[in-house]
Amino acid sequence: EVIVQTPKHDTHRALLPEDRIADVIRAYYQRYEDLDRDERFEYLLLFRNHGRVAGASLSHPHSQLIALPMVPKRTSEEMDAAERYFAKQGTCVYCDLIAQELAGGERVVYENERFIAVAPFAARFPFETWILPKAHMASFGSISTEDVPAMANVLKTTLLKLALCLGNPPYNYIVHTAPYGSPSSPAYHWHVEIMPQLTRTAGFEWGSGFHINSVAPEEAARYLRETEVREQVS
Amino acid sequence: EVIVQTPKHDTHRALLPEDRIADVIRAYYQRYEDLDRDERFEYLLLFRNHGRVAGASLSHPHSQLIALPMVPKRTSEEMDAAERYFAKQGTCVYCDLIAQELAGGERVVYENERFIAVAPFAARFPFETWILPKAHMASFGSISTEDVPAMANVLKTTLLKLALCLGNPPYNYIVHTAPYGSPSSPAYHWHVEIMPQLTRTAGFEWGSGFHINSVAPEEAARYLRETEVREQVS
Repeated sequence: EVIVQTPKHDTHRALLPEDRIADVIRAYYQRYEDLDRDERFEYLLLFRNHGRVAGASLSHPHSQLIALPMVPKRTSEEMDAAERYFAKQGTCVYCDLIAQELAGGERVVYENERFIAVAPFAARFPFETWILPKAHMASFGSISTEDVPAMANVLKTTLLKLALCLGNPPYNYIVHTAPYGSPSSPAYHWHVEIMPQLTRTAGFEWGSGFHINSVAPEEAARYLRETEVREQVS
Repeated sequence: EVIVQTPKHDTHRALLPEDRIADVIRAYYQRYEDLDRDERFEYLLLFRNHGRVAGASLSHPHSQLIALPMVPKRTSEEMDAAERYFAKQGTCVYCDLIAQELAGGERVVYENERFIAVAPFAARFPFETWILPKAHMASFGSISTEDVPAMANVLKTTLLKLALCLGNPPYNYIVHTAPYGSPSSPAYHWHVEIMPQLTRTAGFEWGSGFHINSVAPEEAARYLRETEVREQVS
């Protein structure tokens, strides 16, 4: 399914006002919940591609979702790692990460009452940024009515900082959520991974599964923190 | 290390004569063997990026190698799968694949006495093509003096077919080989994976680890088989 984010065909100013982004998040949520009722589906992959380099084949601002009859490989790997951590530590690895990042501060890009945006410790891509709800929540389907405007605020602020700091870069963002079958996992924590596409995935990355990132996440976070967000004149 | 393939800075005609390609393969082999003597290294990743879209930052025709102090994730996954197949079937999955492709024929791109080029059954990318030695050989380090010209022939023919059929597309090729520690694995079989970069890796691929490929491998193989290779006038 393609989620059309705005009636305005306006590629370069894809950053909508916060209340319009909240509408887009509500659309994600409604489709997430509705497709959960279909027994064929095990997982919902929600994502947005922005810019041709990031694989966007339509220029009109849009998000996409693909409902899958199985849990994808990447999600299984992430769930397995979180469950191994939980078995050992008795805590959610993402909750621990949030506490640690808030205490340290050097990789924090932005936060509000309910969400945090951070450069991950082992960022694969320059300026990779994750958005996580501060409260433990395994599934995107568990967001509350009050979470929606706070998520719109953190998503808009982070995307605007990236756009201003890097000159409207192509990017992908992906909602990582627990599968439909385990919405209350104590080990997993839904989040959004934003991956600006500033470099090319080449032979080394394809062959090894490792990533070369020439920008330290602490540097990227500092640039983004220092990028002042002025409300756009549409 | 960067392996310079030719003294001629000649981007668009990167396809050298077969005997020059044989020299490049000999350089791969010499570096492979030499770095095996260094105890720090567990794996050698040999690859070539062609074209900016495929991540080539130098335009002069070159290959690269990165010696790694560990076996990369992708290689472990591939080895594990091959070993599971071997445990169950008692045969090398790649030897079985070669026999099956030669019997069927519809995904064969080219073959000579010692090597075969095929479109893999579950190709991730349009026109993805694999080159495999017909004889069982786990490690690239096991190629014989007689294998080198045959490998140069299959590599040149396949790359030339791709270049003529698709208009000099950007591509990555990666030599998949057994780790230094298990050069005689009965389960694994070294090969080259050529991945033309005609489409973009986007949110769905990054989020799921699955690939959407709009060209059936049988179609791709047919186009490549039917592409006549005329020797280039340099």
